[in-house]
Amino acid sequence: MFRERLIVIGANAAGLSAASQARRRNPGLEILVLEKGAEISYSACGIPFFVSGAVPKPDDLRVYTAEFFHARRNIEVATHREAVEVNTSRHQVSVAGPGGKTEALGYDHLVLSTGAQPASPAIPGLALEGVFHVNDLGSAVRLKEFISSGQARSAAVIGGGYIGLEMADALATTGLRVILLEQSARLFEAADGELAAHISQELAAHHVQVHTNARVAALLGDGNGRVHQIVWEGDGGGAAEAGCVVLATGVHPRVGLAEAAGIRLGATGALQVNEYMETSAAAVLAAGDCVECRDLVSGRPVYVPLGTTANKQGRVAGENAAGGRASFQGIVGTAATRVFNLELARTGLSEAQANAAGFKPRATLVKAFSRARYLGGREILVKLIADPASGRLLGAQMAGPEGVAKRIDVFATALQARMTVEQVAQLDLSYAPPFAPVWDPVLVAAQQMLRELKR
Amino acid sequence: MFRERLIVIGANAAGLSAASQARRRNPGLEILVLEKGAEISYSACGIPFFVSGAVPKPDDLRVYTAEFFHARRNIEVATHREAVEVNTSRHQVSVAGPGGKTEALGYDHLVLSTGAQPASPAIPGLALEGVFHVNDLGSAVRLKEFISSGQARSAAVIGGGYIGLEMADALATTGLRVILLEQSARLFEAADGELAAHISQELAAHHVQVHTNARVAALLGDGNGRVHQIVWEGDGGGAAEAGCVVLATGVHPRVGLAEAAGIRLGATGALQVNEYMETSAAAVLAAGDCVECRDLVSGRPVYVPLGTTANKQGRVAGENAAGGRASFQGIVGTAATRVFNLELARTGLSEAQANAAGFKPRATLVKAFSRARYLGGREILVKLIADPASGRLLGAQMAGPEGVAKRIDVFATALQARMTVEQVAQLDLSYAPPFAPVWDPVLVAAQQMLRELKR
Repeated sequence: MFRERLIVIGANAAGLSAASQARRRNPGLEILVLEKGAEISYSACGIPFFVSGAVPKPDDLRVYTAEFFHARRNIEVATHREAVEVNTSRHQVSVAGPGGKTEALGYDHLVLSTGAQPASPAIPGLALEGVFHVNDLGSAVRLKEFISSGQARSAAVIGGGYIGLEMADALATTGLRVILLEQSARLFEAADGELAAHISQELAAHHVQVHTNARVAALLGDGNGRVHQIVWEGDGGGAAEAGCVVLATGVHPRVGLAEAAGIRLGATGALQVNEYMETSAAAVLAAGDCVECRDLVSGRPVYVPLGTTANKQGRVAGENAAGGRASFQGIVGTAATRVFNLELARTGLSEAQANAAGFKPRATLVKAFSRARYLGGREILVKLIADPASGRLLGAQMAGPEGVAKRIDVFATALQARMTVEQVAQLDLSYAPPFAPVWDPVLVAAQQMLRELKR
Repeated sequence: MFRERLIVIGANAAGLSAASQARRRNPGLEILVLEKGAEISYSACGIPFFVSGAVPKPDDLRVYTAEFFHARRNIEVATHREAVEVNTSRHQVSVAGPGGKTEALGYDHLVLSTGAQPASPAIPGLALEGVFHVNDLGSAVRLKEFISSGQARSAAVIGGGYIGLEMADALATTGLRVILLEQSARLFEAADGELAAHISQELAAHHVQVHTNARVAALLGDGNGRVHQIVWEGDGGGAAEAGCVVLATGVHPRVGLAEAAGIRLGATGALQVNEYMETSAAAVLAAGDCVECRDLVSGRPVYVPLGTTANKQGRVAGENAAGGRASFQGIVGTAATRVFNLELARTGLSEAQANAAGFKPRATLVKAFSRARYLGGREILVKLIADPASGRLLGAQMAGPEGVAKRIDVFATALQARMTVEQVAQLDLSYAPPFAPVWDPVLVAAQQMLRELKR
């Protein structure tokens, strides 16, 4: 008797969640996970904390080993095995092994979890020694070794999104002099401009030099093939010493394999999947940083690669690959980060995104306290975006020294439930002086928005 | 030309919120707030932190003064003015002033915000010196003075609800030897038994002696009229030195004035109001600790006096007293507290309450991490209660050293939106290693509950 075989391509969040869920659902399935690299199952989001030194060893970021999957879950995880071709009519994957030999493996179900690859901007000098991507554990380890060797006194970070901000924090924390260059007009573009001012202030307080509207023109070497200087245009133009350069210029979905197999891409350039994580090819599902998904606020397809979404999608893909019928509805775009002592969080549509999505949004901005003032409550900024036509909340953004990163989840939940601002203003949120003032910032902001909507 | 007059009885959370909102709505209204005591507008929930010393002065708990209301909001707040009778047909309030004289004041609109009064259990010895209620700022100040005088080396707290727990923490923090006596079978009855074990452990670790199933039989004096010993029956019975006794045996709605005026009480014994905070008497609204409200999960009337609810209800009463038509839908019973280093939180129905409300609930208990383990994440306990018939979430409880008190708000929001467990399991919650693991405890618990519901 033959067993059905599930092949999963890519052994990180989405792929291993899919494999594990398929195993839970179907103990009899043969499950093989192919990983082209050396590493599996690690926390990519922990990389800045490894670089900063807060996390001492790369092992601390590793979650499970191939041996664990073999012994405990009866899942075979093969590293250094690159899927080079998918034949959706024959249900076969061609796999290149370490010796260069290629073999064809048949599948009954296939999950594509090929992830994302870092964008490589067209900057001369990217091949110099001391220039790093930080999208995977291997490159993070090389960066950390480079810093530890003491070769650099300064570092440049290219890109002011949340990865760039976290890396600027991490590099400054190791003692390097840091410069951050962002091509667009402001930092943290996922949020509106009000947050950017707070971020700039926090970076300045920690001696990180920031240039926005700055296009990097070149990285220059020291004559020994090592990076030495970064040169930019815009924002006055300039040059600075950079003994080390980190690229945080975003990622693209890794879709080459699927595209070559004729699997449909969506409007964002990532794989198109339905709510069951099914692609356009029979028996082929996909999950994680290679797929687009639905923004539940705007109803539109978006590409927002995040580990937490990858895990949820992976479980759904695994469940369905093993005969189930789970579904993944979409995201509301929740994200949080910390830059030095400033917490940042956002969910839903920014004001700019709401306009782009065809709403005529109203926005309000309040300052409120993280907890009782007599117990040291700190001021935090809350921005809300709402639709005056329906009264619906569309998005929220927060910044402050504490009580921000997880408080955004109330707004995220409200968005997922399609609540009106009036409903948010009536939420029965917890109150205890060490954790919240009697009017939680969430309620203060909703009440303020309510008044503006009534005007 | 005559101005309409709003009289508000009671100058704390609900009453002052009502007065302030009425002023916002109607600049022309005459607004008079009567307060029988000396204090207005202070944080009653901050009292334990004043007793412990975390909040140095009673002034730190005071929010606004009568002068503030007069000068900034054109609201007259009169202290030491007790409303002794309401005549709903004549629209008059009889007010006893400091000199003992009574005057009748006419109203166009009346808001009752008479609050709650501490339950006085039938225990011999309550009149001894050193025995304190802690329901208002005055009694808290007297307790603090008594402790500061060094007359007591030990303290007994009667009542193991959240006020009792906070007071035990506060008294132990001042250096007293503390014993806590609870009449029922467990501490923190608002939650199910699983949390109680954690609370007992935390109290033991801080040398607070706990007896449950213990009925206090008597407080004994030292011969000079000062409390010296506490004697209880049940749980083996016993006696302990108690140089100071704090009563935390709950509160009752203060409804005598309204009841005498023929205003209807609800099933809970508190004032019955509709969603507009209207009582059974024309032009009389009520808000705060004197009213019952609707539990949005069970649909039943409940009496849960809390400052945050009082504020929301007060605003609605004030808006409507001034000609508006706002509504307050109800609560889901969210509460949070901290006992030493343990955070506790609950929302919705406990398992016991769900059974009592006619559900056939399923419960699940998980342990999950507050944030990434490689950044020091701590284990927290999450209990969920759900309705297998509809798949709806009914309640949640959490305990742990961090990341509990405000995380409960996600469940509170989900309850208010009547979400199913499946919807909760798909929430797009924030993820950043310093604040949450990739699977937030909320999601871990919901996923686990989902599996149990499918069994």
